[in-house]
Amino acid sequence: MTIDKNKRTLTSSGFHVSQDAPVNTDNPIPTPEAEAPDVLRVAYMEIQVTDLAASREFYVDVLGLHVTHEDDQEIYLRSAEEFIHHNLVLKQGDIAAVGAFSYRVRSPEDVDKAEAFYKELGCRVERRKDGFVRGIGDSVRVEDPLGFPYEFFYDVDHVERLAWRYDLHIPGELVRLDHFNQVTPDVPRAARYMQDLGFRITEEISDSDGTVYAAWMRRKPTVHDTAMTGGNGPRMHHVAFATHEKHNILAICDKLGALRRSDAIERGPGRHGVSNAFYLYLRDPDGHRVEIYTQDYWTGDPDNPVVSWDVHDNQRRDWWGNPVVPSWYTEASLVLDLDGKPQEVVERTDESEMEVTIGADGFSYTRADDDKDMPDWKKGEFKLGNQL
Amino acid sequence: MTIDKNKRTLTSSGFHVSQDAPVNTDNPIPTPEAEAPDVLRVAYMEIQVTDLAASREFYVDVLGLHVTHEDDQEIYLRSAEEFIHHNLVLKQGDIAAVGAFSYRVRSPEDVDKAEAFYKELGCRVERRKDGFVRGIGDSVRVEDPLGFPYEFFYDVDHVERLAWRYDLHIPGELVRLDHFNQVTPDVPRAARYMQDLGFRITEEISDSDGTVYAAWMRRKPTVHDTAMTGGNGPRMHHVAFATHEKHNILAICDKLGALRRSDAIERGPGRHGVSNAFYLYLRDPDGHRVEIYTQDYWTGDPDNPVVSWDVHDNQRRDWWGNPVVPSWYTEASLVLDLDGKPQEVVERTDESEMEVTIGADGFSYTRADDDKDMPDWKKGEFKLGNQL
Amino acid sequence: MTIDKNKRTLTSSGFHVSQDAPVNTDNPIPTPEAEAPDVLRVAYMEIQVTDLAASREFYVDVLGLHVTHEDDQEIYLRSAEEFIHHNLVLKQGDIAAVGAFSYRVRSPEDVDKAEAFYKELGCRVERRKDGFVRGIGDSVRVEDPLGFPYEFFYDVDHVERLAWRYDLHIPGELVRLDHFNQVTPDVPRAARYMQDLGFRITEEISDSDGTVYAAWMRRKPTVHDTAMTGGNGPRMHHVAFATHEKHNILAICDKLGALRRSDAIERGPGRHGVSNAFYLYLRDPDGHRVEIYTQDYWTGDPDNPVVSWDVHDNQRRDWWGNPVVPSWYTEASLVLDLDGKPQEVVERTDESEMEVTIGADGFSYTRADDDKDMPDWKKGEFKLGNQL
Amino acid sequence: MTIDKNKRTLTSSGFHVSQDAPVNTDNPIPTPEAEAPDVLRVAYMEIQVTDLAASREFYVDVLGLHVTHEDDQEIYLRSAEEFIHHNLVLKQGDIAAVGAFSYRVRSPEDVDKAEAFYKELGCRVERRKDGFVRGIGDSVRVEDPLGFPYEFFYDVDHVERLAWRYDLHIPGELVRLDHFNQVTPDVPRAARYMQDLGFRITEEISDSDGTVYAAWMRRKPTVHDTAMTGGNGPRMHHVAFATHEKHNILAICDKLGALRRSDAIERGPGRHGVSNAFYLYLRDPDGHRVEIYTQDYWTGDPDNPVVSWDVHDNQRRDWWGNPVVPSWYTEASLVLDLDGKPQEVVERTDESEMEVTIGADGFSYTRADDDKDMPDWKKGEFKLGNQL
Repeated sequence: MTIDKNKRTLTSSGFHVSQDAPVNTDNPIPTPEAEAPDVLRVAYMEIQVTDLAASREFYVDVLGLHVTHEDDQEIYLRSAEEFIHHNLVLKQGDIAAVGAFSYRVRSPEDVDKAEAFYKELGCRVERRKDGFVRGIGDSVRVEDPLGFPYEFFYDVDHVERLAWRYDLHIPGELVRLDHFNQVTPDVPRAARYMQDLGFRITEEISDSDGTVYAAWMRRKPTVHDTAMTGGNGPRMHHVAFATHEKHNILAICDKLGALRRSDAIERGPGRHGVSNAFYLYLRDPDGHRVEIYTQDYWTGDPDNPVVSWDVHDNQRRDWWGNPVVPSWYTEASLVLDLDGKPQEVVERTDESEMEVTIGADGFSYTRADDDKDMPDWKKGEFKLGNQL
Repeated sequence: MTIDKNKRTLTSSGFHVSQDAPVNTDNPIPTPEAEAPDVLRVAYMEIQVTDLAASREFYVDVLGLHVTHEDDQEIYLRSAEEFIHHNLVLKQGDIAAVGAFSYRVRSPEDVDKAEAFYKELGCRVERRKDGFVRGIGDSVRVEDPLGFPYEFFYDVDHVERLAWRYDLHIPGELVRLDHFNQVTPDVPRAARYMQDLGFRITEEISDSDGTVYAAWMRRKPTVHDTAMTGGNGPRMHHVAFATHEKHNILAICDKLGALRRSDAIERGPGRHGVSNAFYLYLRDPDGHRVEIYTQDYWTGDPDNPVVSWDVHDNQRRDWWGNPVVPSWYTEASLVLDLDGKPQEVVERTDESEMEVTIGADGFSYTRADDDKDMPDWKKGEFKLGNQL
Repeated sequence: MTIDKNKRTLTSSGFHVSQDAPVNTDNPIPTPEAEAPDVLRVAYMEIQVTDLAASREFYVDVLGLHVTHEDDQEIYLRSAEEFIHHNLVLKQGDIAAVGAFSYRVRSPEDVDKAEAFYKELGCRVERRKDGFVRGIGDSVRVEDPLGFPYEFFYDVDHVERLAWRYDLHIPGELVRLDHFNQVTPDVPRAARYMQDLGFRITEEISDSDGTVYAAWMRRKPTVHDTAMTGGNGPRMHHVAFATHEKHNILAICDKLGALRRSDAIERGPGRHGVSNAFYLYLRDPDGHRVEIYTQDYWTGDPDNPVVSWDVHDNQRRDWWGNPVVPSWYTEASLVLDLDGKPQEVVERTDESEMEVTIGADGFSYTRADDDKDMPDWKKGEFKLGNQL
Repeated sequence: MTIDKNKRTLTSSGFHVSQDAPVNTDNPIPTPEAEAPDVLRVAYMEIQVTDLAASREFYVDVLGLHVTHEDDQEIYLRSAEEFIHHNLVLKQGDIAAVGAFSYRVRSPEDVDKAEAFYKELGCRVERRKDGFVRGIGDSVRVEDPLGFPYEFFYDVDHVERLAWRYDLHIPGELVRLDHFNQVTPDVPRAARYMQDLGFRITEEISDSDGTVYAAWMRRKPTVHDTAMTGGNGPRMHHVAFATHEKHNILAICDKLGALRRSDAIERGPGRHGVSNAFYLYLRDPDGHRVEIYTQDYWTGDPDNPVVSWDVHDNQRRDWWGNPVVPSWYTEASLVLDLDGKPQEVVERTDESEMEVTIGADGFSYTRADDDKDMPDWKKGEFKLGNQL
């Protein structure tokens, strides 16, 4: 019954666990000598939208995020249990893109550490004592080695936590910002850099050839603060908010139906294999992807087992084996540099998860020892689609 | 705010309501002069399975139905709130097929009425004072005008209702048999006959040309005891059990994943437009389709508004606009005649719902006034598939 | 495993089932020769309130009932799945009291039958072709033999069913009117009269001496349309609305806490023994009691087993054995006669359920064979309080 | 809208928030110069039980904890999402008592730090390289300054996480160990010592005279790893396990009812004011109290606002204002010293929360500005009971 920590162990659930994630890269970003900042948690995302009123309708009227501040150029939103100023900033702009992936660090000194860390990496770095957005003080923003606009701050205004304000809650109440998800061409390279930044890998999808398709990594003791998804990048795959219960997520779907906006539902609801969380993917009016997520597990122990999924396991991305729509694999949001220009997107050269699982040469199994019995309804649209 | 009962009214939810369902047939089954039996409710289905042990594992070990009686040839199962002997009979046989759609009537005399009703229709009728299966007394079985094996009975053994036995309940506990669903080529013809049998239509899917694709009809005051789905028939589309809450349905999916049987999930979970119920479709080891269903609405008033859905409304079958897999439209179970031989399947000649909504010439809309903006992920696999 | 219908059977859940409820009265109300009306279901309650604005805040702002019509003297409210004009009428008045317990009958002719039925009983009867309230046509109101203002109608305006309008739903959405509960001194006498009116008993609480403390009776196939609770009467004990799920009921509690109105929660939430439903009791600003209720069971078969609870079974009113607060037993609303004057309240002379279970001479058990082991926290506040 | 961190701020929910908890003691335990160990989280409790078979039935058959190991003297149990060897150890013994409150530390070196920390405090300390129980290696146990048997360890066997094994889950599945709760006479003294040990206060209950009735403190970023409840001590108030959703907790109540063990339910279910979590308190066969708990909030930021509740706020312990039963305030489990002898219980001399809120001179309010309008059913059983 006891698991040998020194080995890679096949669990009764069909995935492997081990102490170390199989993340090896022959193209590493150099590890800085500077100490990494102590990142507390994912704090907020800044997204640029092309129609602020339409975005407000989506995030406030439909999803029920709470407005901390708004004017005709930007809207600051937070989830019900948040006590810092915001978890999402919407900014009016010319194109749809992401302005910042922002993390809170443990102390003011950690902002200095972040600055030094990225300077040593040769990244473009900008420090603003008064912050880049409202409600937040001394901050540093960088164009990180993968091309993403990362921000680190400690100083922030406090606002009232609305956790007890059930009179303001809606059936699909969002209670926390949970994580980001980033698209990048070379997942092991990205994961190694994130480990240098102090993140720990909790789960990953790979194959027997050693190709890594995606990796999840955390600072707070949940499955992730961010994940790296293999694909053309740098792009933002999604930003995720948590609800308390699964019915809250279903309520969001029901409400979108009632508003005749069901076409905002891209994928799900379903149960993830990776993370064991219940999920839903939406697309906002600009196509930015938002996940609604609940009930992953504690990962805070230093020897937390790393979960490895076989890319051909048909339950890895949906525990119920429901197909992933192609758009979920291929579409993502541009990210901005520190001048507000879109970063150039570089193509992935490794194998594509979509191709190896649903393409003409791809395959997926429900049971590891028996890959031939998947019924047509599970073989899915992709093999069909692939033949177009 | 008041609705004019004499008109067909477009609701704010996108469907129409009216007092009478638009079910007109130029090929009616004659209405008998004999009085129809007073049908109480859907009572049980008898299905023939090719591997009784495999079926037992599915219905008992996975779905948790409670065994009233079993031997090596048949298994009698009931849901947690049932007090009559069974809701499902599994019989070992050579082919997968349905032996009986059984209804309970209000009194012993109603069995006589059923016998007379079908004799007048010229149907093959068999009466057995000791019943066709265990636990049930005086019964009549018929090959109805549509080719389905229908049964009517009043006399039945009582067993303990396990509603309060929470120590025996599983996370996905099934509490009631809810309805049948039948595939038949000519829906208006079938619906008119069912009206003669005393059923009332609650909802239907049709188009502006007058083609009816499906109709739901009830005796008990829920959305249905059975539905008629247009297609090659007579075949059994599904049998449905109810849970109390939506999380019970999600728990069934989670358990199937844990058992590495996720390929039993054919469609869903989701929210129906028709019926407003939360649903999931499974396939048993023989391919018989089982729906898990919860939370439709009261329909027991004689002037209950009939709901009409446009076949092109993409939220009619799934309120969230998630695509219906093709197998759900095309696959169904054979039904047996009173000798236990499969009934011949007749092809539908009316328009196919699948073709008009997802074929090359088909279309579906999210918003009635705006059918061009459905994103690719909602246009679905079918248009792709159609081009193969 | 089969239950002998001719016997009274002790179930594994601790209560008995039988075909006939043990309701015997030596003081019966004469059975009319006139045929009883065919009552469909509980339709609405009219309550008089002393501060219409305060009541509106409670029923609309807190509980989220939907307004069909309102002016400065009355408010018409309905639940989310209702298609008739209203389920609750609030009328401004000088005292808090109930103006009508209103049932819908199956046809216009059933209103005539109701009129004849009560005239034969010698009751005061008033017929109004244009109805007593908005939205409802031809109606008859009576002062029934127990002193309650009963109404029967068929003709009613239709309004839009808001079942699919999830954009309007709140976390504690009320979806149906479920039942009334009436306080009357002599339960068997009341139950016998209700049987004459066509109601069927589904459950009851009694003791080995034959005293009946309460009885539940139904027309629609749920546990009840109304119940008779033994006590000083005629008074209205509560009116009950249904939610879909248990979390909806918890959400109402959470919201009341957030509004600092938790003192509106009188009892619960909890699981009933009787009915097996999940429940909560609130008190409106005038003290009218409202139950929120979900998930009882199908009772529509003519041979539905009657459930008999021992009054000393501590799980009969709360399956979890949590104590019933004294106010729940003793407090109730006055009812009005057809002139709008309060009916005189007559004292119960039979044993009091509160006294026999929690008074100095009362006792309750968790396990029938072992009544001494109930811990202090379950013996209840009353015995304990005495010793402070 | 922004909260001034330098002030104590009254929130719209009725409690205050501030940066520092008002914990002042004039009788402090000296702060050691030795560095505190880095405590990761609450890991397991060891309890002594007088009938191991009865305890097994409660924790395994009823609550569904998973057995890692068992023999005729002890049983090792874990929750569904745990990957370390156990969260609960049951040991057969002569009296009911608690053998250890065990915390996991971040590294092997932290065990050394714990040893030094308590040695400097003059506590009795015992170090065992092979652990005190199965599955755990190098550990230190101490009799801490408050008299509690605390344990610290890093080395532990790994077992399979059953998070994905939904086939093994029951309706009331326990997924994590959440926290301990300890009874101690002097809460500020205890809280100060725990701060020295590296714990942070998240919430507290106090009054305007400065009396502190209880304090919650955490290492992991939830509301607590342990709490200090004012009363005669050292005693163990409860150990708490988490479920995913609220219905899981209701299912435990339903199951206890079905087993005719509802007298194991002491208090709840309900919503806490403190922590905002949904809760239930059970008593095991020896009277050890177990809480089932779900959905508190993130507290991991260093400037997480401390929540202060007025002891007279009737929603502090139950957000719905439901009364706390006296046994919950007065009863608790003995704790053992390192020889397995019960620690002597010292009486609390500060004000009693029960007395100031529900005694003859006590009072509680629903609305801070209006304490006279609490209805009888909320004034509580105690005052009422007195008058019987």
